[in-house]
Amino acid sequence: MAIAYPHFFGSEKAKNLKPSLMVTPTPSPVILSQDELKKIAAYKAVRSTAKHAIDRIAELLRIGKLKNIVGIPTSSINHEQVVSLGIPLSNLNAHPILDLAIDGADEVDPQMNLVKGRGGSLLREKMVEGASKKFIVIVDESKLVSHLGGTGLAMLVEIVPFCWEFTLRRLEMLFIEAGCVGKLRVVGESSEPYVTDNGNYIIDLYFKSDMGDLKEASDAILRLAGVVEHGMFLDMATTVIVAGKLGVFVTNK
Amino acid sequence: MAIAYPHFFGSEKAKNLKPSLMVTPTPSPVILSQDELKKIAAYKAVRSTAKHAIDRIAELLRIGKLKNIVGIPTSSINHEQVVSLGIPLSNLNAHPILDLAIDGADEVDPQMNLVKGRGGSLLREKMVEGASKKFIVIVDESKLVSHLGGTGLAMLVEIVPFCWEFTLRRLEMLFIEAGCVGKLRVVGESSEPYVTDNGNYIIDLYFKSDMGDLKEASDAILRLAGVVEHGMFLDMATTVIVAGKLGVFVTNK
Repeated sequence: MAIAYPHFFGSEKAKNLKPSLMVTPTPSPVILSQDELKKIAAYKAVRSTAKHAIDRIAELLRIGKLKNIVGIPTSSINHEQVVSLGIPLSNLNAHPILDLAIDGADEVDPQMNLVKGRGGSLLREKMVEGASKKFIVIVDESKLVSHLGGTGLAMLVEIVPFCWEFTLRRLEMLFIEAGCVGKLRVVGESSEPYVTDNGNYIIDLYFKSDMGDLKEASDAILRLAGVVEHGMFLDMATTVIVAGKLGVFVTNK
Repeated sequence: MAIAYPHFFGSEKAKNLKPSLMVTPTPSPVILSQDELKKIAAYKAVRSTAKHAIDRIAELLRIGKLKNIVGIPTSSINHEQVVSLGIPLSNLNAHPILDLAIDGADEVDPQMNLVKGRGGSLLREKMVEGASKKFIVIVDESKLVSHLGGTGLAMLVEIVPFCWEFTLRRLEMLFIEAGCVGKLRVVGESSEPYVTDNGNYIIDLYFKSDMGDLKEASDAILRLAGVVEHGMFLDMATTVIVAGKLGVFVTNK
């Protein structure tokens, strides 16, 4: 959800926290320590951030502490919740410049570059978050990586269905030195392609090593005819909030 | 139509012709001179090139002078003709590298960069022609420009329908110094958006002056979330054949 309003909850508190990203390996204890319990709590908090944020905004609106805000949801789940709470809805046509966007991410590197969109609505998120003056990313520490692709999970690319196997092969060839393997995203256990909101397919790319210069990688992907968008959000986040077992850490750009 | 076959008609003759692009202003005579009549004849020949080429390929196949070729049509008109003549059909998945593509263009600049796709199927053309080792472009001299956009006609951009007005505005802003104006392509005289084969919309961009470095312009357009592809075909043509009132001229890269 993106907010077209200059003042927003949470930012004052955030400023007082240690301004650094913590990249810590996550242990796998058999017995849960107190730290581990804190960590679980933090992770849960992060996962429900969007929902809680929307609830809180609705409450502040209701009691009159927030005025003149509109929200632009980037997913249908957001959309339903926003509508049900009576937050005024808008879109990018009416509000081409937004004050604030808040979202999670699948990966965050030390330069605050992101992988996002594993949920499948990457294009709308990229349009909305690219239109925002401030973009706050909230993640748990398991999302911190030394380089994008570092979790071993997918970096997705949205492509047109026409000759998708050809496009998949060309994507793999771009990153052959990084041991890139691509897979068409399917619905559940079927072989039926997953179709995005925009009627496109998704290729999940897996990398054995880092893909080199990210801006070059981004341009090379976008130059392939057949590619609509990819899941790297470069130089877009202005604040990253990380929840870990030692607490919450904030980095500003 | 793209041909996956190394030897093809016409190429020997083409080599003997003058290897230069003729960029000549086209006069508008009231009375048709003999030159003008020749020009009209040449233009007509170019407009029906694809149809004649496909007919000729079918004939050469039938009499056994061509063997082991497959064709990949980029439009439904091509497709029907190819099927009706019995030319074996293929696609980019089965033939990711093609030997030859032949097509027209809307504009050709002195560096053999093209504007294409005003007909609306730019994405498929770009995929097929980008996969071809040789790409022969056949135009009449009215398509020759000193810089892309120079005919004053549109350079089109295929975009996703989601928040298309926002994307249109961002495209105009990219080229504000070139006096860029964008228009949503509609069906006939209606206000209904034209929808591409891929379910997308088309923005027609008009430029008052040149858009500067073309590769930078291309990357800037492709970096906009919401853009699928644009109509500039940079560094793709390997041969340009130009029909004009003084005859046919061929330039090879």
